[in-house]
Amino acid sequence: MNSRRYKVAVLGATGAVGREMLTVLDEHRFPAEDVIALASARSVGEEVEFGKRKLKVRAAVPEAFDGIDIVLASAGSAVSKELLPEAARRGCLCIDNSSAFRMVPEVPLIVPEVNGDALEGHNGIVANPNCSTIQMVVALKPLHDAGGLTRVIVTTYQSVSGAGKKGIDELSAQTIALFNQKPFEVKVHAARIAFNVIPQIGTFGADGYTDEEWKLVNETRKIMGLPDLPVCPTVVRVPVFAGHSESVIVELERPLTPDAARALLQAAPGIVVVDDPSQKRYPMPIDCAEKDAVFVGRIRRDVSRPGGLAIWVVADNLRKGAATNAVQIAELAVARGLVHGARPVAQA
Amino acid sequence: MNSRRYKVAVLGATGAVGREMLTVLDEHRFPAEDVIALASARSVGEEVEFGKRKLKVRAAVPEAFDGIDIVLASAGSAVSKELLPEAARRGCLCIDNSSAFRMVPEVPLIVPEVNGDALEGHNGIVANPNCSTIQMVVALKPLHDAGGLTRVIVTTYQSVSGAGKKGIDELSAQTIALFNQKPFEVKVHAARIAFNVIPQIGTFGADGYTDEEWKLVNETRKIMGLPDLPVCPTVVRVPVFAGHSESVIVELERPLTPDAARALLQAAPGIVVVDDPSQKRYPMPIDCAEKDAVFVGRIRRDVSRPGGLAIWVVADNLRKGAATNAVQIAELAVARGLVHGARPVAQA
Repeated sequence: MNSRRYKVAVLGATGAVGREMLTVLDEHRFPAEDVIALASARSVGEEVEFGKRKLKVRAAVPEAFDGIDIVLASAGSAVSKELLPEAARRGCLCIDNSSAFRMVPEVPLIVPEVNGDALEGHNGIVANPNCSTIQMVVALKPLHDAGGLTRVIVTTYQSVSGAGKKGIDELSAQTIALFNQKPFEVKVHAARIAFNVIPQIGTFGADGYTDEEWKLVNETRKIMGLPDLPVCPTVVRVPVFAGHSESVIVELERPLTPDAARALLQAAPGIVVVDDPSQKRYPMPIDCAEKDAVFVGRIRRDVSRPGGLAIWVVADNLRKGAATNAVQIAELAVARGLVHGARPVAQA
Repeated sequence: MNSRRYKVAVLGATGAVGREMLTVLDEHRFPAEDVIALASARSVGEEVEFGKRKLKVRAAVPEAFDGIDIVLASAGSAVSKELLPEAARRGCLCIDNSSAFRMVPEVPLIVPEVNGDALEGHNGIVANPNCSTIQMVVALKPLHDAGGLTRVIVTTYQSVSGAGKKGIDELSAQTIALFNQKPFEVKVHAARIAFNVIPQIGTFGADGYTDEEWKLVNETRKIMGLPDLPVCPTVVRVPVFAGHSESVIVELERPLTPDAARALLQAAPGIVVVDDPSQKRYPMPIDCAEKDAVFVGRIRRDVSRPGGLAIWVVADNLRKGAATNAVQIAELAVARGLVHGARPVAQA
């Protein structure tokens, strides 16, 4: 099985996550027979890098998926809703980074370290969770297995790359304009992000929470199989180019000491513990950029509640928060022989 | 009493907070007969602005306090420990922004909106709390009075001006260097702060918390008169020039709805509620710089706990977090006739 090679399409290949997907496929030496880059008509003919090769971008039309085994998609919800059912009908395993299918009950929402088994019995579309959710559940999983989560309070420091290349460019442009006392535009982020923090990502509902905040709640519950887990989210954009940070307060049924928690986290897959604060060793976004792991530090008791824990979790949101996790889902599908699962086309 | 005018000395007048103290004294039209600027020998002869006037900096020696009524000090703990007892002995009311005396039981630690009464019976030295503490307790006070605080979880986004002018200059210099691909220094902050977040302010203890984090716990308890209040702090430096932001989770004995909390906060002294998030109205550091108030928004129920609240609190750390609060303590002393309180010199 492992000697088989797969035809892979990256949909949305010119975006920040799409480009990162190509980089990770290359770095991981994914068993690809062929990799094609798909994007909207506007980008057709552009070139994107895949290792040392350049791929010509082709049009993302339904026929482009003929003969493809695996689609890694990051082209936004509207495109995913339109094209991925077409791709799945053609026999592709689609791993979708948009929020389009995440909360559909029949669609597995996967973080391999946490709920890889949910990949069994997929129907051709698998959802990749939101960036801030992925890094948090990777860190919560070993603590939950040992202590039983009863409540999570999470406050985030999310980088501008979460808003794609446009989000990165806006921070750059505003920073340069401010130093030169020139006017600048505010288009991508909700307000000026240079030298500011914005307590808004996404759109507010009547309850005073944004859809981005509810993703953290609902996706965490689905991935961890804890439909009633109490989660309180506060999501904030900060002027950092790459890497999301999260302050997470963890309440447990069975108390864990910081030492016990540290040992569990060190032994857990996908996690690098960086936790020697007196030596200035703790995770920071600048140290985690372009890395695949989830970095956890500042593991300490919650001094406001016996038996609780406080941790600090950082990951590159374009890597583990998006591209890396999508590629890992594909790798899991390959390892378990699930690329061609119980898809409609298999029955044809 | 109110027609009396006072001789005021600003100790540490060349620092970021000292300069702000002079600005606030001028803006507030503090009833000063005279204002003098004191600093270390190194700065003697420099000029600092006081409204439209310039003040020549004089040497901070004990004799400089002869005849002074009120000292506003922001020259660091060592200088405060050395000079403020000298000033108090000479009959001054010393309002100290350093941490030197904050936790001394006999020294009042004052935020006028919260515990102004503690000023009665001072012995010549009054402590100004830490910046991140001040803005939090102003917001907590009305919620506590109505609902009874049982636990607070606070995660901060603290600006570089909290580390003084050096801290501001380091963010500037690093930002410019990065855009020009030049090397840069890391001296003031624990790591590179430009386009990064650092989960460290202060020095770590064996428990994994910094002294800055314990200030938030212990000072909050002292100011609010709740010696056992459970507080969990996570303190983080962000690349913002001015203004600290805090995500605060509030647990109460008697539940408050967000609407009730909003009304209480709107009616409370020193607070401006900015809370219409769907119209992108919430407090942000860039909107709060050089303002005296504490800004509160994103007032919502804590979806992880019935009856709890989540709020977002922003203030200019050099203003309400330091200079403004110190001047307000002086104003309170004037209004209550407590400038010349039960000081040793009064007994001489």
